[in-house]
Amino acid sequence: MRSAVIHGAGDVRVEDRPAPHLLTPGDAVLRVVAACVCGSDLWNYRGVSPVRSPRPIGHELVGVVEDLGADVTSVGVGDLVVVPFSLNCGECQACRAGYPSVCDSMTMVGGLDRAGLQVDGAQGEQVRIPLAQASLRTLGISESEAEARGLIPHLLALSDVMPTGYHAATSAQVGPGDVVAVVGDGAVGLSAVLAARLRGASRIIVMSRHEDRAALAREFGATDVIAERGAEATAAVRALLDGELADAALECVGTKESMDQALAVVRGGGNVGFVGVPAGGPELHVRDLFTRNIGVKGGMASARHYLDVLLPRVLDGTIEPGKVFTHTVSIDDVATAYELMDAREAIKVLVRP
Amino acid sequence: MRSAVIHGAGDVRVEDRPAPHLLTPGDAVLRVVAACVCGSDLWNYRGVSPVRSPRPIGHELVGVVEDLGADVTSVGVGDLVVVPFSLNCGECQACRAGYPSVCDSMTMVGGLDRAGLQVDGAQGEQVRIPLAQASLRTLGISESEAEARGLIPHLLALSDVMPTGYHAATSAQVGPGDVVAVVGDGAVGLSAVLAARLRGASRIIVMSRHEDRAALAREFGATDVIAERGAEATAAVRALLDGELADAALECVGTKESMDQALAVVRGGGNVGFVGVPAGGPELHVRDLFTRNIGVKGGMASARHYLDVLLPRVLDGTIEPGKVFTHTVSIDDVATAYELMDAREAIKVLVRP
Repeated sequence: MRSAVIHGAGDVRVEDRPAPHLLTPGDAVLRVVAACVCGSDLWNYRGVSPVRSPRPIGHELVGVVEDLGADVTSVGVGDLVVVPFSLNCGECQACRAGYPSVCDSMTMVGGLDRAGLQVDGAQGEQVRIPLAQASLRTLGISESEAEARGLIPHLLALSDVMPTGYHAATSAQVGPGDVVAVVGDGAVGLSAVLAARLRGASRIIVMSRHEDRAALAREFGATDVIAERGAEATAAVRALLDGELADAALECVGTKESMDQALAVVRGGGNVGFVGVPAGGPELHVRDLFTRNIGVKGGMASARHYLDVLLPRVLDGTIEPGKVFTHTVSIDDVATAYELMDAREAIKVLVRP
Repeated sequence: MRSAVIHGAGDVRVEDRPAPHLLTPGDAVLRVVAACVCGSDLWNYRGVSPVRSPRPIGHELVGVVEDLGADVTSVGVGDLVVVPFSLNCGECQACRAGYPSVCDSMTMVGGLDRAGLQVDGAQGEQVRIPLAQASLRTLGISESEAEARGLIPHLLALSDVMPTGYHAATSAQVGPGDVVAVVGDGAVGLSAVLAARLRGASRIIVMSRHEDRAALAREFGATDVIAERGAEATAAVRALLDGELADAALECVGTKESMDQALAVVRGGGNVGFVGVPAGGPELHVRDLFTRNIGVKGGMASARHYLDVLLPRVLDGTIEPGKVFTHTVSIDDVATAYELMDAREAIKVLVRP
C-alpha cells in the first residue's frame, strides 16, 4: 500500500509499504478515507525534532473497518470510524477519569505500540490500529452518506484538532457567559474558538494577524480580533472589556511568549487552558499564579472522550470544524501538503489516499 | 487599647495604642471578641520576612460592631461578625467572580489600606475595618449565644484557616467520591481535610508525622495517614489505592518539596489545589504538567466568598473547624502564643483580648 514516510527535515516521500494485518486480538485494520497534516508533524518536517530514521507519519484519520481482532466488539467490519490521535485501553485510572491521552498504555497513531510494533501512519491507504476496542467508536453514518453530505472533513477534524481546541476550553473551565481570549490562530486556535462558542462563551477574543484566519475565527464565533502582541495585546483586551480582563485564556501555540500572553489577559481567579505542545520548556512561577489565583491546566487532548459530545454536533450541523481544511491533496502529493503548511499558505491540509 | 505589636524576630509585645475610630464612611470599628495567630505571622516572628519597623499584627478575628461609617448598611451596631483576613470592595471584576482576595482594593487586616492608613492588627482589643460594606456579614447569632454554645472558636476559624483549606479543595475541584491527598498537617492542612470531607470526598489521605495532628485529621475525616515523604510517600499512596493515585492533592505547606509531593501523588488529569504561601519561589515545569494533564490552581483564599457556604455548616454543627485551636491565651500573654506555635507545641492558638 502507499504511505507517507518522513526521512528527515523537508523530506516526506510516498512509498510502498506492506499492507497491514491483524497482529493481536485487540487490533483493527482500517482503510483510510481521509487523513491530514498536523502542526506537530511540522516539527519533524522543519527539523525542530530530528528524524532518527525514516518512519511513517500522520496520526489523524477517518477510515472504514476492514478487519477486526477477536476481542474487538465495539465496531463492526464496514463501519466508518474516527480514529483519535492517541489510542487508549479504556480501563486504567486515567481512561476511567476521561483522560485517554494519559492512558497507561497510550499509543500514538504512527508510533510504536506497547509491544514495540509499528502502528501505521495515517497518511496512507491502510492502518493497523491497536487498542481498537476502547479507541474506536461507530459513528452511525455510512461512508457514502458522509461523503454525500460533505461531512468527511468535519469528522476528520474530530480525530485531533477539534478535540484539542475543546480540551483547551474544558481545561480552562469555559462555561456559559464567559469572556474568552484565544492565543493562536492556527487550526487548533480556530477550533478553540469554536469550542468556546459551543460551551456558551458570550465573548471570544482571538489574537490574529492573518486575514484569512481571522475571517474563519469570526465564522467560528469570535466576536473580536486583535493584532497586537505582548503588553499591547493585554491593553487591547482591556480596551475591549472596559478595563477588565478575560475569564479564561486558551493557549494554542506552545511558546513561552504565548503562555505569558495567556496568563496576562486573564482576570484574577481566571483559568488558562493550554494545548500548545510546550516548545522550549517554559516554566510557571508559582508565586505569580498564587498572587493572582490563576489556574493552569492542559496537555494532550482527551479526543476519544470528547467524541461523545462533539460527534452529535457535527452530525446535526451545529459545528463545521472541517473548515480548517483549506486545501486537499492526494496521497501522492503529500509533500505538497507539508510545503503548503510550512509556508502558512494553508491553515490545514486534508490528504486523500 | 491593648494590642500586639511585632518589633522583630522573636519579639512580639503588647502595647497601648490609640483606640481606633472611623476614618472614612466605609469603615467599621469593632470590639475584638477573639483573634488568633496564623502560620504566616510566624514568618515575621522567625525572621524569614524581616520586620522593617514595629507594626501591629494579626489578621483573623471575630468581633462585635461598635461604630459604623455612613456607607455601611450590611451590618448593624452590636452585630457579631467574622472578619475575613483580606478585605474587599465587592464591586471589581475579581470580587464579582468570587475572588475577594485578588480584589483591586484588597487590604489585609493589620496592613495598610489603599489610602495608606494603618488597619489595626487583630491581636488586640479593637480594630478599624475599612471596606466594611462588602467584607463584613451579619452572622445571625449574638455574641452571648455564640459564647454559650461554644461557637466562638469555630466562627473564628472562618476568618482564614477554614476557608483557606476550603480554597485548596475548590481550587482542586474536589467533588463527591474523589480520592484526595492532603500535603501538610498544620491548621490549614487539617482544615483542608475537613473541606474535602464537606465536599464529598470518599477517601482522604493526609501526610502527617505528628500523632496529635493525625488524630485531629482522622476526627476531621481523614481515612488514612501516611508518615512517608517524597517517593516513599507516593509509593505509600499507591499501596493504599491498589496501585493508583489521588484524584486531587491539596498543597498546604508552600515549599518546593510539598508542591512536588502534591504533583507526584495525583493521577493523570487530576488537580492540585495549593494554598501554602510559596516560599523560595518553586516553579512548575509546563512540560511535566502537559504530559500528565495535571491542573494547578491556588492562592490566597476567597474567605468572604466561602462564608455563605461555611457559616451555615458551623451554625448547624456539621463542621467544628475551631478544633484546630489547641491553646487559648489572653492578649497579655500573646508572646506565649507565638512561642507555642513556633515550637509546634500548639497547632493554632486562640487569643482573647
